Amino acid sequence: MYKALPSIGLLGGGQLGRMLLQAAIDLDIKVSCLDPDAEAPCHELAHFFKEGSFQDYDAVYQFGRHFDVISIEIEHVNIEALEQLEKEGKQVFPQPHILRMIQDKRLQKQFFQDHGFPTAAFVLTENQADIAKHADFLPAFHKLGKGGYDGKGVQRIDSLADQTKGFNAPGLLEKAVGFEKELAVIVARNEQGQISAFPAVEMVFHPEHNLVDFLFSPAAISKEIEAKAEKIAVDLIDKMGLVGVLAVEMFLTPAGEILINEVAPRPHNSGHQTIRGNETSQYEQHLRAIAGLPLGSTKAKGVSGMLNLLGEAGFSGLAKYEGLHEALAIPGVYPFLYGKKMTKPFRKMGHVTILGNTKEEIIEKSEQVKSLIRVIS
Amino acid sequence: MYKALPSIGLLGGGQLGRMLLQAAIDLDIKVSCLDPDAEAPCHELAHFFKEGSFQDYDAVYQFGRHFDVISIEIEHVNIEALEQLEKEGKQVFPQPHILRMIQDKRLQKQFFQDHGFPTAAFVLTENQADIAKHADFLPAFHKLGKGGYDGKGVQRIDSLADQTKGFNAPGLLEKAVGFEKELAVIVARNEQGQISAFPAVEMVFHPEHNLVDFLFSPAAISKEIEAKAEKIAVDLIDKMGLVGVLAVEMFLTPAGEILINEVAPRPHNSGHQTIRGNETSQYEQHLRAIAGLPLGSTKAKGVSGMLNLLGEAGFSGLAKYEGLHEALAIPGVYPFLYGKKMTKPFRKMGHVTILGNTKEEIIEKSEQVKSLIRVIS
Repeated sequence: MYKALPSIGLLGGGQLGRMLLQAAIDLDIKVSCLDPDAEAPCHELAHFFKEGSFQDYDAVYQFGRHFDVISIEIEHVNIEALEQLEKEGKQVFPQPHILRMIQDKRLQKQFFQDHGFPTAAFVLTENQADIAKHADFLPAFHKLGKGGYDGKGVQRIDSLADQTKGFNAPGLLEKAVGFEKELAVIVARNEQGQISAFPAVEMVFHPEHNLVDFLFSPAAISKEIEAKAEKIAVDLIDKMGLVGVLAVEMFLTPAGEILINEVAPRPHNSGHQTIRGNETSQYEQHLRAIAGLPLGSTKAKGVSGMLNLLGEAGFSGLAKYEGLHEALAIPGVYPFLYGKKMTKPFRKMGHVTILGNTKEEIIEKSEQVKSLIRVIS
Repeated sequence: MYKALPSIGLLGGGQLGRMLLQAAIDLDIKVSCLDPDAEAPCHELAHFFKEGSFQDYDAVYQFGRHFDVISIEIEHVNIEALEQLEKEGKQVFPQPHILRMIQDKRLQKQFFQDHGFPTAAFVLTENQADIAKHADFLPAFHKLGKGGYDGKGVQRIDSLADQTKGFNAPGLLEKAVGFEKELAVIVARNEQGQISAFPAVEMVFHPEHNLVDFLFSPAAISKEIEAKAEKIAVDLIDKMGLVGVLAVEMFLTPAGEILINEVAPRPHNSGHQTIRGNETSQYEQHLRAIAGLPLGSTKAKGVSGMLNLLGEAGFSGLAKYEGLHEALAIPGVYPFLYGKKMTKPFRKMGHVTILGNTKEEIIEKSEQVKSLIRVIS
């Protein structure tokens, strides 16, 4: 049977887009990007690169009109334009109504609650002052409803003394839960309803800037917990009816309970290692899902790890990668640079995937890599 | 230690270049291409794409001046320009004097002989008439000295009745040897002299058009033969002092002897499956070698196979890929399309990598894929 592959218009041209473009080369799928930064990581690799804001109605609408499928690599996009494109018969994946719900952490949490998915207790707040009404709810995390990204838009409130750290905009207060591990499951669904989950990964966050610093796959959890985490992710994407990949971040409590933290409707930082570590990468899987293709096998090829390369504190300017040659001499170590010209402290500049046979080997190599590679200027 | 990665100018912008560009994204290595076809497979992905002939002195020289390292994806390039660039301090990998030798099958064979590498007996011929002087040497293959490519420039001469099939230009007559298998070993060497070989693959040629049709890795040979094949490839690249990858095609005779057939100083058709099947691909390895980086691990992740996708006989025009959706539903099946707009009979349009646990599984899946995918118009 012959069926043409669709052209794809992608909102955003950052590193997630870059890895998607790299995967799209295999099937010669033409992916074009809209991004406000003329030197975004995708600008040279996109089939067509349009400089413009993905938050602007006209920019998104005019861009989207040229493609069969419109997708995203960042969720903070103009939904109204996507809804209009959908009305005019374009395929928009993930679907605009799902993006609208996920964009707002308040609606997201409400969705989990309404459909019986386990998540930490929360109350909605309209402004900073509202925090005082929920003193008995503390310690908690105050989360901005809209616009949070990469660890921004989240503040821990231990007591009312921290109230001024909260956001003076609609948000929510989420009860701080004790947890043993943070897990993530990336799951994909295509239009035909086929669903496939990647093995759960275990994330280790950087204490200071709240970005995933290191993770490994598969997570060091029991088969039972693994199955529970996978089932939650599969049920969630099924309930949403989302087409594309969905990253589901979760907490594992000491009692063995799994709580959904939050979700991202796109390839995710917690899935970079799937490029080398799994039979299909999250990027290829997203393409398969939105292009109406069968999903690929998510099987792990062994143990893998992923280490983010952040701009070194104290360095701003033209990026240089110290220690790359030395790191490349270690078997199973695969740096991936995002092609960003300028570095600044804690900017995500790249990542390193590490392959091996045991978790211990992965951790040891990751420590080696950490001591070797520095993003300086 | 900080050492900048070089910019690379590549002569040729075909499918081998395309896979090299895809690999170069990982380390954000900027690769630019020179190709006479404005719509060559690399034209959208290259950092800079220059339309021009890689056989023309001026085109090559003017192009090459802009980069730190000049490399090739096809060996039929203008050597004089590369020699001039080398004289002016550019790094040209593989080195021009090696390219000069490999470009001419007569010099190539002479090199094998002079340095004691096993190869089938041969005599030089200056024209078609010369074949008659070597009637006792038949059956043999008449090979054109320069310009042969992809199975062209080779003719089997069983007896003098076939003489007119021979080439009326400088060439050689190579004694037809009985062989059990055709093998290929891809080996790489960097400037520091580090050498690393990929596991030997076993090739199955299409009887009609003399192109590799299917191969699998590792070859079904004894450890002893495997070691012998690897040693020949390693010794050969070492003796040449070549920087980059070298594909060494070999015959395995019924007596267990290995004879070098011919070599290609670049990523090769017999190494496509390394992208998915090995810890480092031949493309990444070539980049590492020419960019002064440590070589990567060539370890196989299991058994892999590779099937060429050729334009279906009877179809010429805008290419369409029938059966792609169905093939993608088979686990471990990874089609790779070269992005060529037009198909014609037997044109190389793509390939399919197949991963599995046993040779039998690979062969079975390859038969399935063969019956599913057709490149039509």
